Amino acid sequence: MGLLSEGLTQILIPVAALIGIGFSLLQWLLVSRVRVSAADHTDADSGYHKNLLGDAELENGVQGLEVTIKCTEIQHAISVGATSFLFTEYRYLTIFMGVFGAIIFLFLGSVKGFSIKSEPCTYNEGNLCKPALANAIFSTVAFLLGALTSVLSGFLGMKIATYANARTTLEARKGIGRAFVTAFRSGAVMGFLLAANGLLVLYITINLFKLYYGDDWEGLYESITGYGLGGSSMALFGRVGGGIYTKAADVGADLVGKVEHNIPEDDPRNPAVIADNVGDNVGDIAGMGSDLFGSYAESSCAALFVASISSFGTNHDYTAMSYPLIISSMGIVVCLITTLFATDLFEIKNVSQIEPSLKRQLLISTGLMTAGIAVVSFIALPSEFTLYNFGANKFVKNWHLFFCVAIGLWAGLVIGYITEYFTSNAYSPVQDVADSCRTGAATNVIFGLALGYKSVIIPIFAIALAIYVSFSLAAMYGVAVAALGMLSTIATSLAIDAYGPISDNAGGIAEMAGMRHEIRERTDALDTAGNTTAAIGKGFAIGSAALVSFALFGAYVSRAGIKTVNVMTPKVFIGLIVGAMLPYWFSAMTMKSVGSAALKMVEEVRRQFNSIPGLIEGRAKPDYATCVKISTDASLREMIPPGALVLLTPLIAGTFFGVETLAGVLAGSLVSGVQVAISASNTGGAWDNAKKYIEAGTTAHAVSLGPKGSDAHKAAVIGDTVGDPLKDTSGPSLNILIKLMAVESLVFAPFFAAHGGLIFKLL
Amino acid sequence: MGLLSEGLTQILIPVAALIGIGFSLLQWLLVSRVRVSAADHTDADSGYHKNLLGDAELENGVQGLEVTIKCTEIQHAISVGATSFLFTEYRYLTIFMGVFGAIIFLFLGSVKGFSIKSEPCTYNEGNLCKPALANAIFSTVAFLLGALTSVLSGFLGMKIATYANARTTLEARKGIGRAFVTAFRSGAVMGFLLAANGLLVLYITINLFKLYYGDDWEGLYESITGYGLGGSSMALFGRVGGGIYTKAADVGADLVGKVEHNIPEDDPRNPAVIADNVGDNVGDIAGMGSDLFGSYAESSCAALFVASISSFGTNHDYTAMSYPLIISSMGIVVCLITTLFATDLFEIKNVSQIEPSLKRQLLISTGLMTAGIAVVSFIALPSEFTLYNFGANKFVKNWHLFFCVAIGLWAGLVIGYITEYFTSNAYSPVQDVADSCRTGAATNVIFGLALGYKSVIIPIFAIALAIYVSFSLAAMYGVAVAALGMLSTIATSLAIDAYGPISDNAGGIAEMAGMRHEIRERTDALDTAGNTTAAIGKGFAIGSAALVSFALFGAYVSRAGIKTVNVMTPKVFIGLIVGAMLPYWFSAMTMKSVGSAALKMVEEVRRQFNSIPGLIEGRAKPDYATCVKISTDASLREMIPPGALVLLTPLIAGTFFGVETLAGVLAGSLVSGVQVAISASNTGGAWDNAKKYIEAGTTAHAVSLGPKGSDAHKAAVIGDTVGDPLKDTSGPSLNILIKLMAVESLVFAPFFAAHGGLIFKLL
Repeated sequence: MGLLSEGLTQILIPVAALIGIGFSLLQWLLVSRVRVSAADHTDADSGYHKNLLGDAELENGVQGLEVTIKCTEIQHAISVGATSFLFTEYRYLTIFMGVFGAIIFLFLGSVKGFSIKSEPCTYNEGNLCKPALANAIFSTVAFLLGALTSVLSGFLGMKIATYANARTTLEARKGIGRAFVTAFRSGAVMGFLLAANGLLVLYITINLFKLYYGDDWEGLYESITGYGLGGSSMALFGRVGGGIYTKAADVGADLVGKVEHNIPEDDPRNPAVIADNVGDNVGDIAGMGSDLFGSYAESSCAALFVASISSFGTNHDYTAMSYPLIISSMGIVVCLITTLFATDLFEIKNVSQIEPSLKRQLLISTGLMTAGIAVVSFIALPSEFTLYNFGANKFVKNWHLFFCVAIGLWAGLVIGYITEYFTSNAYSPVQDVADSCRTGAATNVIFGLALGYKSVIIPIFAIALAIYVSFSLAAMYGVAVAALGMLSTIATSLAIDAYGPISDNAGGIAEMAGMRHEIRERTDALDTAGNTTAAIGKGFAIGSAALVSFALFGAYVSRAGIKTVNVMTPKVFIGLIVGAMLPYWFSAMTMKSVGSAALKMVEEVRRQFNSIPGLIEGRAKPDYATCVKISTDASLREMIPPGALVLLTPLIAGTFFGVETLAGVLAGSLVSGVQVAISASNTGGAWDNAKKYIEAGTTAHAVSLGPKGSDAHKAAVIGDTVGDPLKDTSGPSLNILIKLMAVESLVFAPFFAAHGGLIFKLL
Repeated sequence: MGLLSEGLTQILIPVAALIGIGFSLLQWLLVSRVRVSAADHTDADSGYHKNLLGDAELENGVQGLEVTIKCTEIQHAISVGATSFLFTEYRYLTIFMGVFGAIIFLFLGSVKGFSIKSEPCTYNEGNLCKPALANAIFSTVAFLLGALTSVLSGFLGMKIATYANARTTLEARKGIGRAFVTAFRSGAVMGFLLAANGLLVLYITINLFKLYYGDDWEGLYESITGYGLGGSSMALFGRVGGGIYTKAADVGADLVGKVEHNIPEDDPRNPAVIADNVGDNVGDIAGMGSDLFGSYAESSCAALFVASISSFGTNHDYTAMSYPLIISSMGIVVCLITTLFATDLFEIKNVSQIEPSLKRQLLISTGLMTAGIAVVSFIALPSEFTLYNFGANKFVKNWHLFFCVAIGLWAGLVIGYITEYFTSNAYSPVQDVADSCRTGAATNVIFGLALGYKSVIIPIFAIALAIYVSFSLAAMYGVAVAALGMLSTIATSLAIDAYGPISDNAGGIAEMAGMRHEIRERTDALDTAGNTTAAIGKGFAIGSAALVSFALFGAYVSRAGIKTVNVMTPKVFIGLIVGAMLPYWFSAMTMKSVGSAALKMVEEVRRQFNSIPGLIEGRAKPDYATCVKISTDASLREMIPPGALVLLTPLIAGTFFGVETLAGVLAGSLVSGVQVAISASNTGGAWDNAKKYIEAGTTAHAVSLGPKGSDAHKAAVIGDTVGDPLKDTSGPSLNILIKLMAVESLVFAPFFAAHGGLIFKLL
């Protein structure tokens, strides 16, 4: 047994979660305290106006007041749009949760014919475990809890983001430092809320389930895997739906507004402009949040499941069992300290300090967490123990697990920094892409695609090394905790990631409201750094997804009772090659979906321009809500086919072709999908920043390519538009594809092992 | 034993090969007989002019004579350029062959420390086999023979193609049917020469090697695998170098000629125009030819190797051993009959009959070959026998092998037809892409990428089914002969494939020579059909590469003595994920190479326009040879890094990480590379034909998008340019990547098994 007693563990975990929630609420409070005066506004239908008008005196007199009113109006519209999206999404999600919950119950219940008899345990030999029907019920409950937690995290993240965007704009009037802190604090609200909530709900669920399961930890933690499935399936909707939403609105707004009516980007007369801004929150905040929450829940579940069938579980060592949760608890504390470095210990005085400050966050959290992991590994674990390794037992020491978690953590840092190198316009790769715009859009696209392909090399080596080391030291438990290590600083990762779209919105609001030049420059600087952090966030999401998927894959192989996943058997190989094809099929669907959803948006925007008198002259207000509704409905409808592909593939492969073919499918989709995801995200990010590089014109080279409207800039815009669905829809959604198929296979493994492989049984 | 005696087998195979060569020469004779008159030309420095001026009377008087003279000049220039490329390429290849031959000898010789002592056999237990040093020597010789045969095939193919292009143009004056027959016969020359040569050299090599090896068939057929390695490594140079060459010239010619000087495409004043036309022959004729020859040699070698360690080899059943060669012999006869359907039995009377006639070739050859396979399977094989299956013996019946070969053959047909569906502008996918040009280049690129991703679905299922069935019936011998089945009609596939670039060149010559409108229409119709067949050819190349690679992979696993390739071991998994990354790394290199090679071309073309007085007015001739030389040198230099990546990866992985990691690398690159290759080729093909669809304007829809120069057309041109390196450089080169790494691993397997895995041994 380790140094930490069971009682103390039972206290420490919820305390850490509550500290996280408390810190998150404190940050919210600090953001909401953005100084307000008693000034009011005639249109008092919401509280926003009142709070935001306080600093009108910072602008010049009457014009300043007008600008401030505009800000509040825009924020209000974005908030209404986001709420409209959420409510429609929830209607879909409720149906999905009901149907899929029923499927889980029926499939798992049928494993032993809905018998309520206790069964002999699979791994903890000689003991009796709870009936399969109980596992079916509790897996379904865990699934619903995971789904609800994910939805809640997305909802709260979106709320704070739409609450903070205009505040950031207004704070920008007082200086770059205050705007930065406002945006960063708002990101931190989301980061800490999500990390702490995820931990707390998981902790409570485990303790409640234990009331029934008692000493049957095998059944308990098998059921808990439903939590990961719930989180990840919501993430699928969040990422794909959100991705289609934001790009449909973006492309639709541009094609009619900019091209047909020649009005500027982010102009408030464009009916789709609010949908576009809502999209940033929907895709980058809620989508990314539920994606990383899913990874977090899945890697915890994978680690817990493997631990439950290892010595931790069979010896009923509660503290060692809870090692993944204690790591996450430590992560919350570390991230809390890290956040202070950005908000209180250092002050941003000029624009050039922003990006280093955000990058420093990554480095500080990684450094501190390394020490934190060491502490946790030495106090929570016995000095020697055995871990389940495909039927055998592997002897492991506590410092082995320290290395497993640490290598995951540091691999994440490497991936983050490499992603930055390939997508930030401070380095040569993006500058080369920008330079290729001289000879037109075609060379821009060719160089951009080549950049994306090249950017996979080092992340793949980092992932391979992390998997090799952690697997060699501690079998698939090692891989699971390596994934957890990469995600242990999730609060900080999410904070700097959510900071991006908040700053983006703030910049949009400043432009739409027609604020002073200096203020726009400040928000632009925040936004540029935000682009880089968004790319880093995607790198983290993909890297952690790869590790998580491999860990889940290992857990699935154990649970399904597969001896070896031998590529040289036809069953496995056909799974492997078809699995490697799935990311392409999925990308084909999502990219076409963006196209067709954008077309619907184009029709509506045209209709409003033609039918609302005075709209184009700025005398009448457009109907933002209809555009938001169209984007919402279209995106949720369009996301059903790719969603069905992801959710049905494991069910079909497992039921008809059996557990081995499904293992091949999982391995194939993992190794192929991670490449497509990284290259798509980085290609898109590089095109976006190549365009921004030309627009900003901060170097002699950039000036020679510009200005806005030059041939090179036009070529860059084409690349940027092509990159939109790649980086915001198909690329990041592939994380979910590989994770979700793996966790779904794990949850349904008992069914496939019992009844799967119908076709081969018939032959 | 089967019905066919050893003596008869010894006669039948060379006779079939000689029939193929004879038929090929007959076709060449018929093409060279294109009616000539006694008219001559002052510049008599080559035989071409004399032969080509005969039909001047078919044009209108003096102008007609002028046009004909131009044709001959252009053909002469293309021929000189192609020869220039070949000679430079040979210099590089000679060095490479020497160095790599030495590596093979040293690595394989060191397996038993260059001992000249006989060794106990690995599979044929109880017998003595030849020393490892002998295998090293004979493998090296086989490698050199394979390389030389590949080079010879490419050289002869390019010669006939550059000989036939102007003849096709001139025949077009007499009618579409005669032009079609000329182009098709020329393609057949290449197809039959390559198929027959490949078979004959392999047959002779086996028989010569047998003089030394005697009854040691294990060593004999192990050495023979060097033949496949030689063929495939030359194919790497042919495909990658040729691909970079043709696209560098194409892009370079366009960027200066069309964009800067506003002269039309294929204008003879452009110094790079000949390099562009040479490129078609270099890339699509020589590159494709050596690619398919490589597949053919490799699948034969894989099948022969597995047979040699199965009952065929241990029982010394020569006829059964020669089953792969007899299948290829039957293929030559079947293709001969099939060719008559195109050249003699049916006559093309109008344009709409061309594409159906070419598609009919595929169907007829597949149908006849199915019967042919049945005959061969029943006369050459014993009714029951055992095949080596990873240490075990698998009982197989002769009709099992019939099904294996046949499913490969039919899977090829399915892939060919699906490729046609996604790349021909007669169907909705390409028309949708063309339609997306309405909203600009960005949507065109998005839709094109989505089309490519979608087009992988059915081919992957076809490949998976073929592998599953053939593997289940006859283990990896089944997969090897399935690959051979897909390639059994290689003469016909190559004929219709080579027909494409010949027609393309013919069209180019007609335009450059300023021939009459009707003649251009005829060559355009030939060319359009040629685009589709080129895409089908690429589909075949990729499909067969996938099957061949899997067969070679299986042979490698056997030879390296690996028990299982278990994905759930860290050694294998890191190989799998890094292997899946290689196609991206490789594509990044080749796509950037096209860019930088094109830039060199741009500089030279600019220099000529500026420094040669009267060039732009048409009074002086440009220096075509310098452009050809630049393209040649640049492309061969640029192809070294990707070539090194492919050739060094197995050596590094095997030597430092061992046979299991290398097995993972091979599986990963196979399942990932096939997706990238199919999607890249089809995306590029679709963009090309979408542009042609708008230009041709044959439907109301197409007219609404056109004409040439419209915004939609400009967007289509951008897509076409992006597609160039995808479909002609990186996409098809990936076939070679996956095949070459597999065959190289097989050849070096004894070394890796003996001395590999240094890093893991150290740890």
